[in-house]
Amino acid sequence: MALSVDLIGYVAAGLTTASFFPQALKTLRTGDTRAISLGMYTLFTSGVALWFVYGYCVGDGPVMAANLITLLPAAVVLQRKLTQAR
Amino acid sequence: MALSVDLIGYVAAGLTTASFFPQALKTLRTGDTRAISLGMYTLFTSGVALWFVYGYCVGDGPVMAANLITLLPAAVVLQRKLTQAR
Repeated sequence: MALSVDLIGYVAAGLTTASFFPQALKTLRTGDTRAISLGMYTLFTSGVALWFVYGYCVGDGPVMAANLITLLPAAVVLQRKLTQAR
Repeated sequence: MALSVDLIGYVAAGLTTASFFPQALKTLRTGDTRAISLGMYTLFTSGVALWFVYGYCVGDGPVMAANLITLLPAAVVLQRKLTQAR
């Protein structure tokens, strides 16, 4: 039981962590950020960076790792959106 | 020290949880989902739903609450994207 519950958590973490990569790839490929919310990526990228700081402070490796991985595609989308918003 | 580290965690959680609302509002307002990745919202919405199931299984209220809140705007964006993808 505990093992299968752990598995649900790991699959959930994998899905939410992986999800930003298709968006970053699509944004890099098309260069189109019109429908992308600047507010979302500002809040989300800041939040993920803070999660990493939190993980560092409490010494939680998985929290640091998951958020460092997510930070990359989120920052790519934010950077493209900021470039186009000018 | 522990209090300020907790505060970092709560602010991080608030930012990442809140971030999907500006995107859902923008998507509902403009109806434009062209730059939105279907892959991202499929993976992310499934992941958030699984996080809720995980929180339920381990009896973690904050995990359930945060993911239930995020599920709403994520599902709205996914639904609009699916409608437009047809």
